[in-house]
Amino acid sequence: MRVRNKPWAREMLDSHPEYVIPSPEENKGKWNSVFEKDQPLHIEVGTGKGRFITEMAKANPHINYIGIELFDSVIVSALERLTEAKLPNLKLLNVNAEKLTDIFAKGEVNRVYLNFSDPWPKTRHAKRRLTYKTFLKLYEDILVEKGELHFKTDNQGLFEFSLLSFSEYGLLLKYISLDLHNSDFEGNIMTEYEEKFSQQGSRIYRCEVQYP
Amino acid sequence: MRVRNKPWAREMLDSHPEYVIPSPEENKGKWNSVFEKDQPLHIEVGTGKGRFITEMAKANPHINYIGIELFDSVIVSALERLTEAKLPNLKLLNVNAEKLTDIFAKGEVNRVYLNFSDPWPKTRHAKRRLTYKTFLKLYEDILVEKGELHFKTDNQGLFEFSLLSFSEYGLLLKYISLDLHNSDFEGNIMTEYEEKFSQQGSRIYRCEVQYP
Repeated sequence: MRVRNKPWAREMLDSHPEYVIPSPEENKGKWNSVFEKDQPLHIEVGTGKGRFITEMAKANPHINYIGIELFDSVIVSALERLTEAKLPNLKLLNVNAEKLTDIFAKGEVNRVYLNFSDPWPKTRHAKRRLTYKTFLKLYEDILVEKGELHFKTDNQGLFEFSLLSFSEYGLLLKYISLDLHNSDFEGNIMTEYEEKFSQQGSRIYRCEVQYP
Repeated sequence: MRVRNKPWAREMLDSHPEYVIPSPEENKGKWNSVFEKDQPLHIEVGTGKGRFITEMAKANPHINYIGIELFDSVIVSALERLTEAKLPNLKLLNVNAEKLTDIFAKGEVNRVYLNFSDPWPKTRHAKRRLTYKTFLKLYEDILVEKGELHFKTDNQGLFEFSLLSFSEYGLLLKYISLDLHNSDFEGNIMTEYEEKFSQQGSRIYRCEVQYP
């Protein structure tokens, strides 16, 4: 994603601590107390401008959601959506995904979403892909038993890499579509990227894998 | 595949017992004595008209090959290729794949190829797909430890089903391409089907999985 510099973003994020949680590691092990209701927690790693997670939170009030995004100039768009929608079951974290285990306790998260993650196409950058084994370990360390990872992308190379990585890690493939928009999958919520790239004719790949 | 009736096929197959092995179950556990050389054995289940297995046998004289095909009117084309090429490392079996464990002993086969297998698209026919769990068990019962299954198809639904089936069975995904003909895979040998359907613009999917 091309990241525009937005000098005002930091200030806006800081001015909404009810949505963009400051010092998130202080809530480790007690995230449900941050939300109105004690219910399952799903997180999106790399939430971008937040369309997916906001729509998911609207559609599923029985689930708590947290969107995680490194770039303040990007997550600020998610905050704008959230201040408008005023959803009680969605929070945002402006942190690096590498911090996940500082922020969530083992078993605190029921599902992880990855949508259109940076493909890092060069082999020497493989370790930065959010489906690389070190990240799969981070997700395992915060997920419940049999927790799920739901992943979609338009990037064929990243999808191939990820399927190999999931299998090598011992994850069970529960669902796969090699052309999501021409499949019978119901209730797909598109990200900003997904809408743009599928309109350009790109196939969307999607899978669900389950931890032991 | 549309199967034409060829009344003369049976007689031609029977007249070449040096290539189309009669009573193959009599060779169970001693297939290498059927070939000139004692070397690894790769089989293709559903060998069709035999272009793939014939070209593989030509290119890899250090491997023994067996092509297995149920329809006599189809495998007869493979026999025609073989009588012309006179390859010492290729045999044909006109049998049903369900008989595999009557024909091969445990550990006798080093690799199984499935190419453009019948997709059996109706859900109620799923058990007939050559990547259904009962077939994966048959292959396991004749393969060496860490034996491999190499699979390609142009059928998206069959490929998705097969990836789920492989994962559920506990096989390790070692290689995958979601667009073989636009990948960096080298040395691909096309089947008759593959050439036809890829020329019509179909994507070819390919993967390799490994047993424990």
